[in-house]
Amino acid sequence: MKFNKRNIHIGNNVALGHNVKIGDNCTIYDNVIIGKNTTICNDCIIGEPLSDYYNIENYVNQPTYIGENTLIRSHAIIYAGAKLGNELVTGHRIMIREETVTGDHCMFGNSVDIQGHCILGDYNRLHSYISIGKYSQFEDYVFIYPYVVVTNDPTPPSTSLKGATIGSYSQITTGAVLLPGTNIGKHCLVGANSTVGGEYEDDSFITGNPAKRLGQLSKMPFFNEDGIKHYPWPNNFDYGMPWKKGEFDVWLSQNNEKIK
Amino acid sequence: MKFNKRNIHIGNNVALGHNVKIGDNCTIYDNVIIGKNTTICNDCIIGEPLSDYYNIENYVNQPTYIGENTLIRSHAIIYAGAKLGNELVTGHRIMIREETVTGDHCMFGNSVDIQGHCILGDYNRLHSYISIGKYSQFEDYVFIYPYVVVTNDPTPPSTSLKGATIGSYSQITTGAVLLPGTNIGKHCLVGANSTVGGEYEDDSFITGNPAKRLGQLSKMPFFNEDGIKHYPWPNNFDYGMPWKKGEFDVWLSQNNEKIK
Amino acid sequence: MKFNKRNIHIGNNVALGHNVKIGDNCTIYDNVIIGKNTTICNDCIIGEPLSDYYNIENYVNQPTYIGENTLIRSHAIIYAGAKLGNELVTGHRIMIREETVTGDHCMFGNSVDIQGHCILGDYNRLHSYISIGKYSQFEDYVFIYPYVVVTNDPTPPSTSLKGATIGSYSQITTGAVLLPGTNIGKHCLVGANSTVGGEYEDDSFITGNPAKRLGQLSKMPFFNEDGIKHYPWPNNFDYGMPWKKGEFDVWLSQNNEKIK
Repeated sequence: MKFNKRNIHIGNNVALGHNVKIGDNCTIYDNVIIGKNTTICNDCIIGEPLSDYYNIENYVNQPTYIGENTLIRSHAIIYAGAKLGNELVTGHRIMIREETVTGDHCMFGNSVDIQGHCILGDYNRLHSYISIGKYSQFEDYVFIYPYVVVTNDPTPPSTSLKGATIGSYSQITTGAVLLPGTNIGKHCLVGANSTVGGEYEDDSFITGNPAKRLGQLSKMPFFNEDGIKHYPWPNNFDYGMPWKKGEFDVWLSQNNEKIK
Repeated sequence: MKFNKRNIHIGNNVALGHNVKIGDNCTIYDNVIIGKNTTICNDCIIGEPLSDYYNIENYVNQPTYIGENTLIRSHAIIYAGAKLGNELVTGHRIMIREETVTGDHCMFGNSVDIQGHCILGDYNRLHSYISIGKYSQFEDYVFIYPYVVVTNDPTPPSTSLKGATIGSYSQITTGAVLLPGTNIGKHCLVGANSTVGGEYEDDSFITGNPAKRLGQLSKMPFFNEDGIKHYPWPNNFDYGMPWKKGEFDVWLSQNNEKIK
Repeated sequence: MKFNKRNIHIGNNVALGHNVKIGDNCTIYDNVIIGKNTTICNDCIIGEPLSDYYNIENYVNQPTYIGENTLIRSHAIIYAGAKLGNELVTGHRIMIREETVTGDHCMFGNSVDIQGHCILGDYNRLHSYISIGKYSQFEDYVFIYPYVVVTNDPTPPSTSLKGATIGSYSQITTGAVLLPGTNIGKHCLVGANSTVGGEYEDDSFITGNPAKRLGQLSKMPFFNEDGIKHYPWPNNFDYGMPWKKGEFDVWLSQNNEKIK
């Protein structure tokens, strides 16, 4: 059943790296570059053209970059002009718009929807059904949980959009809304169903509707199953991370310079 | 790559206007009428039959109307019996059920889900991931933001559904839930993640969980980037609207009679 | 137009019962069993393989069971290793992951997303856009409304997931989030946009962010259109249920032994 090359359509000037596999019923539009060892599952659209495609005779698709060692599950729609890093793994039906740049080692769940002009760092993990508004910027190791929306219009409707920013290692939990221009520091935790606006320093626990900073996250009594304080979480979690559990500080001291 | 007519299936009694384009892998069921200059992108289902189709031998599909100068992006599912106005533009994977009627110049984002028997006016803008329950009714220039749900069952579960109504120019922001039978007046603003029930007069600012009316929206200190009060927003925003910025009152005086 | 057998691909060792219909553009992977009189609409993927499929040469798909008299609407993705009961009816684009077991007579709306290792009883009704986290367990007659998320990670991120449980006849309304390990009793009602953690006895009305138990649901003044107290709702609602309106107690006394 694997990769039967049925009903696949590939445009002009498409560059497929070594060992790239394309699933059935996929459409790869013009000017797409896909890195080696990457798998695009069934029913995907890569390099989806912008509106002008339907209106302008001589429309030229922007280049689209898909990294190496990537697995994009079925029914993804990735727009022309997106640039995705290496080692990405996705669920089904993701949507990524133009001018979005993502780092390496990201994971995106089902129906993640990233509007255009976003910048995501390395090791971002976006679970399923998440909407990231235009002009959002996330650092590295940002985890976002289902039904979170990152918004961008302070006075709807307007054309003066302000994206939110999220610092490295921060966790935005289920159903939270980040209001336009919100700035979340590093190592923060945003509670479920919170409505968050404003600016938050590193190591904040932020929750409620409207949300408030309840204090330093690392001082809060969030104990994990080992009975120890869970935050900062990199001390206690290493699944898919570049450090080993209990050795985050060691890793950090060795790698700090290399982090963007 | 454009409109290769691959794997397209078109039923009986389908009327396509001048210059209609149908993308690859589309299915157009019986009794669909599509207005001139309309584009249906890849992988769409237009005129999706109701349940009886699967059970009744002599099932006849209700007529489905798609307007003129419309762009429906990929993976849409539009049920038989829907009637969509002219100049519609949609994102991907929208779902519109039977007996829904929409006005002209609407925009629907990705994964907008409109259940049956809804009536939407002109220039409605529904961003992505929005669920509109059966029997909802919106006037003109209604803007709805991601992850809003308009509900309809006052005592779940029951069969006595009561749709919500939204007046012209109102803005329902991200993650808000409108409870069954809620009536929002014209020129209102509903805050993010609010849970709203009851009846609200024109020019209300409504927010919180549970939501309250905090006062007249036009008196609230919501200043836009030009440093002036943003509401009523039509004074300050004209993108895709029929009036020009700063000339809403002029337009209104000239067109009031023509508005439904 | 019905069931033209176009662009359908069926793997090895697939068993289709009597009168099974498969829509166009469907892929049925290896080791799928589908019960009699079941209809799989267009563009579905049944038996979607797990990650190893893409990595391991001798990958064997787990068996996938779809029950009898089932209607799965278009664009469903059902993973290998799921086991779905009889008489299921679904909307479009549902997603069910591996090791999930569902009872009979369930209804799932559009874009319901059930992560793996969940157990659902009979007559569960999940409306559209609902995310059910891994290890959730629901008894019978559980109704869940749009944009509800059932979560499972008490200290995100971690690998010690704790699913939530919901007792029979309980109603979880729009936009509610169940925090990890929440236990909802039988005959409860959770209010819209609530954020719910902890343990709740039978017959609780639970609402707010954070949610509290406001009292016994059956004592609350929730009157339906007949002017009588609506809860316990099985006295007043029978659409698709095995009892008749007004005869729930009779049915219960006759069937109690047969309920799991």
